[in-house]
Amino acid sequence: MKLSKLFISSLIICSAGVINASVPVYLDDSKPLEERVEDALSRMTLQEKIDIIHAQSKFSAPGVPRLGIAELWCTDGPMGVRPEVLWDEWEQASWTNDSCTAFPSLTCLAATWNPEMAALYGKSIGEEARFRNKAVLLGPGINIYRTPLCGRNFEYMGEDPFLSGKMATEYVKGVQSNGVAVCVKHFALNNNEINRHTSNPIVDDRTLYEIYLPAFKMAATDGDAWSFMGGYNLFRGEHASYNPILMNDILKGEWGWDGAVISDWGAVHDTETAVKGGLDMEFGSWTNGLTNGVSNAYDNYWLANPYLNGIKSGKFSEDELNDKVRRVLRLTFRTTMNRNRPWGSMGSDEHKAACRQIGGEGIVLLKNKGNILPLDPAKVKKIAVIGENAIKMMTVGGGSSSLKAAYEITPLQGLKNRLGKDFEIVYERGYVGDTLGEYNGVRTNQDLRDFRSVEELREAAVNAARNADVVLYFGGLNKADHNDAEDSDRLSMNLPYEQNELIEALAKVNKNLVVVNISGTGVAMPWVNKVPAILQAWYLGNETGNTIADVISGDVNPSGKLPYTYYANLMQCGAHKMGEYPGTPAKDKFGNDIFDMPYNEGIYVGYRFIDKNKLKPTFPFGHGLSYTTFTYGDASVDKKKGGLNDVFTVTVPVTNSGDRAGSEIVELYISDPKSSVDRPVKELKGFKKLALAPGETKTATFTISKDDLSFFDADRHEWVCEPGAFEVLIGASSADIRTKAGFTVE
Amino acid sequence: MKLSKLFISSLIICSAGVINASVPVYLDDSKPLEERVEDALSRMTLQEKIDIIHAQSKFSAPGVPRLGIAELWCTDGPMGVRPEVLWDEWEQASWTNDSCTAFPSLTCLAATWNPEMAALYGKSIGEEARFRNKAVLLGPGINIYRTPLCGRNFEYMGEDPFLSGKMATEYVKGVQSNGVAVCVKHFALNNNEINRHTSNPIVDDRTLYEIYLPAFKMAATDGDAWSFMGGYNLFRGEHASYNPILMNDILKGEWGWDGAVISDWGAVHDTETAVKGGLDMEFGSWTNGLTNGVSNAYDNYWLANPYLNGIKSGKFSEDELNDKVRRVLRLTFRTTMNRNRPWGSMGSDEHKAACRQIGGEGIVLLKNKGNILPLDPAKVKKIAVIGENAIKMMTVGGGSSSLKAAYEITPLQGLKNRLGKDFEIVYERGYVGDTLGEYNGVRTNQDLRDFRSVEELREAAVNAARNADVVLYFGGLNKADHNDAEDSDRLSMNLPYEQNELIEALAKVNKNLVVVNISGTGVAMPWVNKVPAILQAWYLGNETGNTIADVISGDVNPSGKLPYTYYANLMQCGAHKMGEYPGTPAKDKFGNDIFDMPYNEGIYVGYRFIDKNKLKPTFPFGHGLSYTTFTYGDASVDKKKGGLNDVFTVTVPVTNSGDRAGSEIVELYISDPKSSVDRPVKELKGFKKLALAPGETKTATFTISKDDLSFFDADRHEWVCEPGAFEVLIGASSADIRTKAGFTVE
Repeated sequence: MKLSKLFISSLIICSAGVINASVPVYLDDSKPLEERVEDALSRMTLQEKIDIIHAQSKFSAPGVPRLGIAELWCTDGPMGVRPEVLWDEWEQASWTNDSCTAFPSLTCLAATWNPEMAALYGKSIGEEARFRNKAVLLGPGINIYRTPLCGRNFEYMGEDPFLSGKMATEYVKGVQSNGVAVCVKHFALNNNEINRHTSNPIVDDRTLYEIYLPAFKMAATDGDAWSFMGGYNLFRGEHASYNPILMNDILKGEWGWDGAVISDWGAVHDTETAVKGGLDMEFGSWTNGLTNGVSNAYDNYWLANPYLNGIKSGKFSEDELNDKVRRVLRLTFRTTMNRNRPWGSMGSDEHKAACRQIGGEGIVLLKNKGNILPLDPAKVKKIAVIGENAIKMMTVGGGSSSLKAAYEITPLQGLKNRLGKDFEIVYERGYVGDTLGEYNGVRTNQDLRDFRSVEELREAAVNAARNADVVLYFGGLNKADHNDAEDSDRLSMNLPYEQNELIEALAKVNKNLVVVNISGTGVAMPWVNKVPAILQAWYLGNETGNTIADVISGDVNPSGKLPYTYYANLMQCGAHKMGEYPGTPAKDKFGNDIFDMPYNEGIYVGYRFIDKNKLKPTFPFGHGLSYTTFTYGDASVDKKKGGLNDVFTVTVPVTNSGDRAGSEIVELYISDPKSSVDRPVKELKGFKKLALAPGETKTATFTISKDDLSFFDADRHEWVCEPGAFEVLIGASSADIRTKAGFTVE
Repeated sequence: MKLSKLFISSLIICSAGVINASVPVYLDDSKPLEERVEDALSRMTLQEKIDIIHAQSKFSAPGVPRLGIAELWCTDGPMGVRPEVLWDEWEQASWTNDSCTAFPSLTCLAATWNPEMAALYGKSIGEEARFRNKAVLLGPGINIYRTPLCGRNFEYMGEDPFLSGKMATEYVKGVQSNGVAVCVKHFALNNNEINRHTSNPIVDDRTLYEIYLPAFKMAATDGDAWSFMGGYNLFRGEHASYNPILMNDILKGEWGWDGAVISDWGAVHDTETAVKGGLDMEFGSWTNGLTNGVSNAYDNYWLANPYLNGIKSGKFSEDELNDKVRRVLRLTFRTTMNRNRPWGSMGSDEHKAACRQIGGEGIVLLKNKGNILPLDPAKVKKIAVIGENAIKMMTVGGGSSSLKAAYEITPLQGLKNRLGKDFEIVYERGYVGDTLGEYNGVRTNQDLRDFRSVEELREAAVNAARNADVVLYFGGLNKADHNDAEDSDRLSMNLPYEQNELIEALAKVNKNLVVVNISGTGVAMPWVNKVPAILQAWYLGNETGNTIADVISGDVNPSGKLPYTYYANLMQCGAHKMGEYPGTPAKDKFGNDIFDMPYNEGIYVGYRFIDKNKLKPTFPFGHGLSYTTFTYGDASVDKKKGGLNDVFTVTVPVTNSGDRAGSEIVELYISDPKSSVDRPVKELKGFKKLALAPGETKTATFTISKDDLSFFDADRHEWVCEPGAFEVLIGASSADIRTKAGFTVE
């Protein structure tokens, strides 16, 4: 009877309101976001609040269907929009509308040192996600490159917090201009893939704040990132995804961030710690598949029934839940339910062009003795292209960033397209690596079988090299396990598949050997002095081959610089020399096996360690050559002295002293010679990329404020700028300082 | 080189435009629709034009990813939003977010005779489609009920063009208020399921225009329906989906309609005829499934490569294609790309209430001798509920309208919920029908096995009936093949599973037998005089049991009336008495086997045939009782005479002469006693549903204009209103005229 009367009264309201229903506050775009969030929250049942904070499928959460609050769909990954998978299984759904534009790896983006490229990248990939109706793009990845062995370095932006943070900020803004949220990952200290679920980095506060947090902070505050993803790893004994220090104290507390924390897929292990540790949404905890077409696995998520029951029993407060729900609602209103967002697009000419431009700006000319590059058809007739990476599809593999690219131009195809008319091109494979014939159920469309022995392959390659004017060697890594791939670290810095021996053999028979290293991380180059030219060519996405041909032909003058130090060996890396990578067995508070991993090197990561120990790496951080040359004038500061809150403006004129247009990245480092604490020799605090015609001079202008001069005082738990003299070092790389200036803070 | 330069110049544009990209006309909401369509069209390649007019998967078309023109997703069906299927297979995708609100069958909606209910229905189902991100809802179905055997009558709105058209118009507006297009189907003359791909109705122009087109015209013009679907059948030798008369001459020509014609799934058989016959989008032509994860079946669609090649070879003009593309673009801009459309919702309380209200208004009390209904707890203690349809889930089955309902209250559950406290309820199944244990891969969650023999079942039922005060019999049809299901017609008007014998046996042992007939079409009732009460209860969706309990308990006073004639036998139906259903074998122009089906009864469909031949059906068109009574006063017309363009206003006072609130549908028929052509005795041209408190009187007001008085003159190919006297007949059913009036057109 009660039910019936309820229905009848609601029928009356309903019937009267068919045409002129007034829009409730939560659906009224003209109302402030927070009002809408509160209104929606006030209408939700406890069950709906529980439902909205966890997955309903591999990549979606349900929203509130009853209230018309849209579903929230996420997608991997940072370098292209992942193909659709089945509802509750990882297997691809065999849709045919999800072939994406694969963009260059984020390491390549960082190597452009060009925030405009980051903005273009973010805008473009965001458009693809938008067209595919995704609310959240699971990226960018901005963990610090602590060791060259980390399997996901290619998804990150290098070793420097400032460079990573500046680039990430523009990427975030670009993506989110589409009404698509980024999900900045993996917050924080997810610096290796080995034991990734059980690594427990032991890091002091100063190191945390100076090295491992700044890029995340910039993405969260300057970039206004709408969501964050925790790492699989632990920190101080608690998993990062719901780490009260990282999520509550720092991200939501100190940084005043109002976004949603999304767990990595399968990163949640317990209800209470997840609830208390600041996790807002749970995804991917497990996959049971379907029984009779129905899966109830999601009801058993840590933040589903166990949380609901905990609230009902009084163990947890609904206030705590409400905070999580507010964050998910905010995320939804900012994305799917933002009716002003653009429509996106996929596979457009603009995206192809963006892919090629970013790649072209990111390729780093590491060495070019005798200006062997660009290839000159007047001097060179026959090119031997050697190495498996010249024919290998690289958009597939590597883990969650694996893509179904609309197409992929291999290096060999790109070279033939561009150089085939002017040069004779022969190809030899040289070595055979691990083949990803199939990945997540989709073939790579490559038949890469080759049954020759190592000796036969090498002999054929050497013969081809011997008979050519120039040898272009394409090697490096390939996204197979242990070779730039999620869930495994590299086993050493050495190139796999006996490539070093092959390169040495090629160098012996042809002195015009150009090594094109395709990788997303640094590799050992014991042959570095035996080859005249080396290009670091990353993973470049759809346009790989065309992009590389642009540089080799000279259509594009390389202008990328290294976003990380190219160590000669692991002992040049603080994490290996000082740290305890990959850690020592220990127990967490539940008695589970974990690996304690003291970051004994502290703040001395990358060039900070190199500088401190006066080491000579293969190539230093910030290094990269051009087909032209640049000369630096004298740096000057607008004032010699200033107060704590003054801004110092630094300028330096840079001239293209060669005969070819090109771009130079001007790097600014700050040095604090006298400090109450041990500080790095210098730290990157500014960079500018100048496009210069031959003979042209432009001035690079930088501003330096207190933040750029401070260190983190762990005892006082605050950033401190100590008055005194500071030195400004400006150069073409961290090891190539061209001019200096100074000022005093009073 | 050329490619490279092209890229570089586009890069410059791109780079400059990252932030302040101006919005192109086709994406500028402030611009008129047609300008946007032309702008988009002008940017599309020939291949993109071809791509956008045919499917890329079972239910989607690709849009133009490059330009950010969204994909177009369709969904069945008229009575609820169909669950997701796999990309290229009919199998359900096992998603868990697609359980819908199942609404009553459209025949039930028609039986409400209440345009407000049609608006509520359309708004509600449109909200569910919107929440599911569907651009096109494949419905409503408004084919004329020509024969009670038609397997899809339950999806349509009865036998009368005026009633169907008025209800369809509001349904269309309701759906489209969500930015979801209807797809009005099946245009036209799809009046049977037997031989549905090969039926060739032979129909004269007058019959076509007076009976089979008006509802479609109202939906297209008054309703502004954004898309139409052709039938599988032929008309004058050409398939309806691309019938030049129906699509080009009439729909797009005479009616000036600017929407898109979408083929039924698998309804296209040829490129040239489809191109020329006004088809705009091709769906469902065949399913090959996937090979190595890739399907190219869609490229082989009649409107895909064969059309493309025809254009390239000059066989077809691009202008013709452009017209189709414009229609698809219009459809897209009106739906998915309308950024002002609401967000929709699913499974809301409002939708449940709408389901129950529409059902309650649509149930028809056919007979109620001795006012046995509503059940009175003072007189009745023990109820025997008998019949399989009391426990059978009806939202599953019947063809493309089959649903995955969020829940379904069976009649027995509903009765127990509402009456369980006041009455003793026993249940006996009585008979076993065809069981749909599984449908499209999803179980119905019913275990309906019963291994008793027919005799055992019947004996148990009779015993239960004998020992009860009242028997509620739930029988009828059940959406199994030949029992209200797509792709098969009924084999006779008789109830299946020996229900007639069962009902007779029950009537013998208990005189208080209430038959609740659940069906979407008329059935033979040879026992009609042996049972005191009959309810026509349709398929009622989620709230089936609650809705029926509302009426049986008296919480809701029934107010539905029949939207079709309840023939006593097939010989009362013109299609069977005069026509040649299901047709005679013939050949189409290609030499394929078809079935010619002359509609010899012409315009004499339904009550028009009954009237003409003075027949007495079981229940007449427009019949329906109430728990109260209504008395009609005298009808009056505002003027005795008027010109051709005058509007005549007719009024009639109606009083609730009983002691219970109720609603009466007042029906207005026009009779043209003297005409140059043979005209029906009367034709429905107005209806009003009045809600009246006991003793209350309200006036029903109708307006009559030239259109309501005209017949279609086939020779002149126009509607003609011949001056002279017209009679206005007002009544409670087509056989129960209570008052008359008249006027003269000069």
